[in-house]
Amino acid sequence: MTETAWGSLYALGVGPGDPELLTLKALRILTQVDVIAVPEKTQGSQSSFAWSIAAAALAEQPISGRVEFLYFPMTHHSEANQRAWDDAAATVAGWLRQGLSVAFLTEGDPSVFSTWGYLHAELHLIEPAINATIVPGVSSINAVAAQTQIPLGDGQERFCVVPALYGLEHLESLMKAFDTIVLMKAGRSVPALRERLQRLGLEHAATLVCHASCQAQQIYHDLAQAPQQLPYFSTIQLSLRHRAGILAGKVRASG
Amino acid sequence: MTETAWGSLYALGVGPGDPELLTLKALRILTQVDVIAVPEKTQGSQSSFAWSIAAAALAEQPISGRVEFLYFPMTHHSEANQRAWDDAAATVAGWLRQGLSVAFLTEGDPSVFSTWGYLHAELHLIEPAINATIVPGVSSINAVAAQTQIPLGDGQERFCVVPALYGLEHLESLMKAFDTIVLMKAGRSVPALRERLQRLGLEHAATLVCHASCQAQQIYHDLAQAPQQLPYFSTIQLSLRHRAGILAGKVRASG
Repeated sequence: MTETAWGSLYALGVGPGDPELLTLKALRILTQVDVIAVPEKTQGSQSSFAWSIAAAALAEQPISGRVEFLYFPMTHHSEANQRAWDDAAATVAGWLRQGLSVAFLTEGDPSVFSTWGYLHAELHLIEPAINATIVPGVSSINAVAAQTQIPLGDGQERFCVVPALYGLEHLESLMKAFDTIVLMKAGRSVPALRERLQRLGLEHAATLVCHASCQAQQIYHDLAQAPQQLPYFSTIQLSLRHRAGILAGKVRASG
Repeated sequence: MTETAWGSLYALGVGPGDPELLTLKALRILTQVDVIAVPEKTQGSQSSFAWSIAAAALAEQPISGRVEFLYFPMTHHSEANQRAWDDAAATVAGWLRQGLSVAFLTEGDPSVFSTWGYLHAELHLIEPAINATIVPGVSSINAVAAQTQIPLGDGQERFCVVPALYGLEHLESLMKAFDTIVLMKAGRSVPALRERLQRLGLEHAATLVCHASCQAQQIYHDLAQAPQQLPYFSTIQLSLRHRAGILAGKVRASG
């Protein structure tokens, strides 16, 4: 008697929102796996931003597997989160044990503020032998910079990525040390950030991008124009660029 | 008499090295443009990492345009750089003026330490009306984290991306403020970094990845095992993760 080998597990980044920003690899794996596992924030909703991106990229292409939703609440109630993540990990481990291949979808890139990290840690507790392949995707950070058309870094520059709330607390020291500061989940922080930047005479250094690369994308070069209610996927790129163009010399000086 | 409209200009990220990590959008644009403009570091070499990635992704797909190499030296001699970049920008502007569509290739993502920033600035000096579309790509940063399988950030974490030399100078203050520090172009800094981390008892927090996602990829979980000569595309991910799993509570504590 032979035991069935464990199925393959993939963490698939589907990119920031534009279905064309899926990678060739992510598309291929989506068509091949037995189970496409999709996190949903509301139980039973079968609604997922990551799956809407993947489904649009697949368009008419046939998939050989089935789509399954996993409940991943993102509350501030860590016990509720933990219970749901335990369940999700047990479900995925069950599929793998049956020899099924599984692709777990994440928005953007699996290594950047995604639910994959939690699932991975849980799976490791259930079965340390489970191996995963992470398929990197285009992060929303890169999609934001593509829209602002301001590099995140060149030459000798440094950039950092911080949740907006923390960024505000430590803004002045970050601004000294970094050329670019990317503030994630910035929706609620806009008024406070705007006030601080005004005080420093730097209000023009910030660009707010909501839903980068999606049809719903909005860009605000002036934070004063931003509406009061902003979506979760709101990012501020704060570009100071102390060290820009060091290799070039002339470019920035005359630009 | 009507003037010809300026051609479309794209800055195309081709991803970190694995041709399958090209996006669907990059592949489509490569097949459609009149000119695929490829930076070469050595004049006349027609050798380009970015083009080797794109060509492998295109495989048998026909392209409608031609491939042109542009000389982009990366020396520490800013006058030589500047002269070459002036020439490259003038060449691209000439194509656009003729109404030709141009895709300028960059390794990884155009907004992260790429030559695109320089070309863009030069083009803006020549003709402020030139509009470019930046097509974001998978950055080597995300490819590195996919290989180490350690997230760059989750929940309340913060990460930063710095050239290795700067990272060394300021390592201790960066380590206090950030959960993850990505040190780019780290080849020559490995011995000094190793010594500092040892002194702090943190040598196991560093992973070195060379040529992430490429066939030549090498990973060193122990910096002492790394060879003396390391390639330009060497990145260190330093994972301290002070704030990991805050939403989850249990996971990290027992993980």
